[in-house]
Amino acid sequence: MTQTSAQHSTSEFAAIAERLASTAKALHSRGWLLGTSGNLSAVIQQEPLLIAMSPSGVDKGELSAHQILLVDRDALAVDGSNGKPSDETLLHLQIVKQRQAGAVLHTHSVWNTILSDLFATEGGVAIEGYEMLKGLAGVKTHEHREWLPIIDNSQDMHELAATIHKVLEGQADAHGILIKRHGLYTWGKDLREARRHIEILEFLLETVGRRLELRKCD
Amino acid sequence: MTQTSAQHSTSEFAAIAERLASTAKALHSRGWLLGTSGNLSAVIQQEPLLIAMSPSGVDKGELSAHQILLVDRDALAVDGSNGKPSDETLLHLQIVKQRQAGAVLHTHSVWNTILSDLFATEGGVAIEGYEMLKGLAGVKTHEHREWLPIIDNSQDMHELAATIHKVLEGQADAHGILIKRHGLYTWGKDLREARRHIEILEFLLETVGRRLELRKCD
Amino acid sequence: MTQTSAQHSTSEFAAIAERLASTAKALHSRGWLLGTSGNLSAVIQQEPLLIAMSPSGVDKGELSAHQILLVDRDALAVDGSNGKPSDETLLHLQIVKQRQAGAVLHTHSVWNTILSDLFATEGGVAIEGYEMLKGLAGVKTHEHREWLPIIDNSQDMHELAATIHKVLEGQADAHGILIKRHGLYTWGKDLREARRHIEILEFLLETVGRRLELRKCD
Amino acid sequence: MTQTSAQHSTSEFAAIAERLASTAKALHSRGWLLGTSGNLSAVIQQEPLLIAMSPSGVDKGELSAHQILLVDRDALAVDGSNGKPSDETLLHLQIVKQRQAGAVLHTHSVWNTILSDLFATEGGVAIEGYEMLKGLAGVKTHEHREWLPIIDNSQDMHELAATIHKVLEGQADAHGILIKRHGLYTWGKDLREARRHIEILEFLLETVGRRLELRKCD
Repeated sequence: MTQTSAQHSTSEFAAIAERLASTAKALHSRGWLLGTSGNLSAVIQQEPLLIAMSPSGVDKGELSAHQILLVDRDALAVDGSNGKPSDETLLHLQIVKQRQAGAVLHTHSVWNTILSDLFATEGGVAIEGYEMLKGLAGVKTHEHREWLPIIDNSQDMHELAATIHKVLEGQADAHGILIKRHGLYTWGKDLREARRHIEILEFLLETVGRRLELRKCD
Repeated sequence: MTQTSAQHSTSEFAAIAERLASTAKALHSRGWLLGTSGNLSAVIQQEPLLIAMSPSGVDKGELSAHQILLVDRDALAVDGSNGKPSDETLLHLQIVKQRQAGAVLHTHSVWNTILSDLFATEGGVAIEGYEMLKGLAGVKTHEHREWLPIIDNSQDMHELAATIHKVLEGQADAHGILIKRHGLYTWGKDLREARRHIEILEFLLETVGRRLELRKCD
Repeated sequence: MTQTSAQHSTSEFAAIAERLASTAKALHSRGWLLGTSGNLSAVIQQEPLLIAMSPSGVDKGELSAHQILLVDRDALAVDGSNGKPSDETLLHLQIVKQRQAGAVLHTHSVWNTILSDLFATEGGVAIEGYEMLKGLAGVKTHEHREWLPIIDNSQDMHELAATIHKVLEGQADAHGILIKRHGLYTWGKDLREARRHIEILEFLLETVGRRLELRKCD
Repeated sequence: MTQTSAQHSTSEFAAIAERLASTAKALHSRGWLLGTSGNLSAVIQQEPLLIAMSPSGVDKGELSAHQILLVDRDALAVDGSNGKPSDETLLHLQIVKQRQAGAVLHTHSVWNTILSDLFATEGGVAIEGYEMLKGLAGVKTHEHREWLPIIDNSQDMHELAATIHKVLEGQADAHGILIKRHGLYTWGKDLREARRHIEILEFLLETVGRRLELRKCD
């Protein structure tokens, strides 16, 4: 473990790194982080901002806590961390800063990939009327309409971060963002909430997708 | 653990809490309790009624026995229990009282959500002619027609409990109830039977749903 | 454990009972033995015939070796065994006797249930041209056509056993039998082969079913 | 363990055999190696070529490291190895020699089987525009078009090896090959990369397949 500006955060980092690793294993086993895809982060401290971040190119089913990196607000690994932070660290930081998120999760599931493609021309997927929506922070009734915005994919992380910035400014109540043919981002005030959100959004996307299969030939 | 009116029930409570927790883990791993959804209960004693109830807002894959609450017939946590019983405790109690159930399970699966929506206008789903039906208590042959009633969803638990009361009065032989775009309730004389019923009904709903995909373009 | 006519078979029985229990757990986790459905057997000795048989009404995810029963050629539990053999023991014995099988497995999967229904009027499902077929005993090339006969379901086990007898007489090279809206029977010279056959047939039935979904609107 | 021409490779062989066995278990649990299907290999040394190879006819969920065979460039088990190398060892060797691969994986999944059939007349499946493609070695952007060639199945391994040779000569940038109604081959510079490739290609084939179900009735 590295020596950080905030000495007290060291043990918290170790605890969070353990939880990120076990979350990665659980999501990988559901097929949402196959082939080293996806990434996970959690805030260690706000001022100055430090996050725990999964490394680039690691099998999430075998991720261990000591591989988790400590990363600053500019997406640089803090001295002492080995490995390279995920390329998508900029997107995690954008969400953390803009939504005061305590954790961000990004998955590649079959269903989020398909729906991000199928509804790309509409600019988003509407999910409405499901009890499961109540698991999203602040939602009190199934009579909620969640709009999951879909943005175009890009290999320019600064461009993607800017697009996320714009989308989140325009929709303060979003709980997630889909990137076309790429995957899902969601977040929460802490890792527990982010984990709940990923399970709920993945469930709802699969439900919407399978529902569509049954409807389309009516 | 709390001191209850029936001192002898304390050790039974601990044993049942363990079994509720392991049941939760198993159903969560099948994707039927994602995102803290769903809940589980089992009767500890009938007079006065006390049930073991899963708490509100807990990840069912991580539920531990000590989080299970002891709840009385009015849905109040008995003194000594920490945490808040699930909002849907009233529905569990309604089923326990009306059907003399020993355990009640409530799941949110993709297939029960879809079918509860697809057949809502018919007021229920008919499941007929499957050998698997024989796993439902009292059913002796595959030539059985199970009618799973579907009721509208609501955030008013008293209203939902009253609807369940009415539906169960009208259909004494029901083994489960679907709530539209919400999920499935089933029960049994004990936790073992309720667990068997949930597996059977989830299996049959998936079978009916996938069968429909194959039929629709004939 | 019971004292049997063949004393030497006692330790073999214990070993096979362990393997039946672990096979049950594995198949249950794939969703092929939900809700106490399905059953498993293996031959302990041929003369006089004794088989190890899973008991009636037990959760296959929790089946332990000591619950496995020792059953004679007339489907009676040998003295000392507790519990009741599965009602379908007669079908296992029919297959054992007619095919000199060393083990018989019976699963209820979503796909075997659906296909046993969809192709019932044709009297069977043809599976042809798949490499996976080579995993069936005696099949040397993917250019094989496997005909899985489908028989009507019944609650009269003597009638079902007689139907199986007739079907197997008519088709000496069958590797399995589907019972309509009920499930799949397969077998092998030993438990290892029967386990291989169940995985292969379940795989092929899922493949045929999903292939059909893609074809039907051509 | 056997004594090999290169004594120093013995401990490396043991380590790789362990990793092949754990990889087999993981892929079997996803349903990609059911019924003893599929096989796995990794290079031990290049000159003279020696590979670690899974044996023929073994349940991949129970494969243990000591069952892994040491095989030379002519597909013969090196003295000391028990068991028979998979019939498809020739195909592994062909790929190893032609692509300087360090590991080769071959799976039978439902989706790779279906797509290898559905697109056989086109001679391959195109997978294009998915972020997940970036997990394939050398691919830097989602704007990549991966062409997975499909070859006819055969029981003549020399013929299949020759066909693979021709296909790989014609398409130097391929990351995998489908054999019609049979399965998928992929490889990597080491076992880690091959494992990543198999997860990515299986994910993409499932995505393409399910996407097709949603598109066909538009």
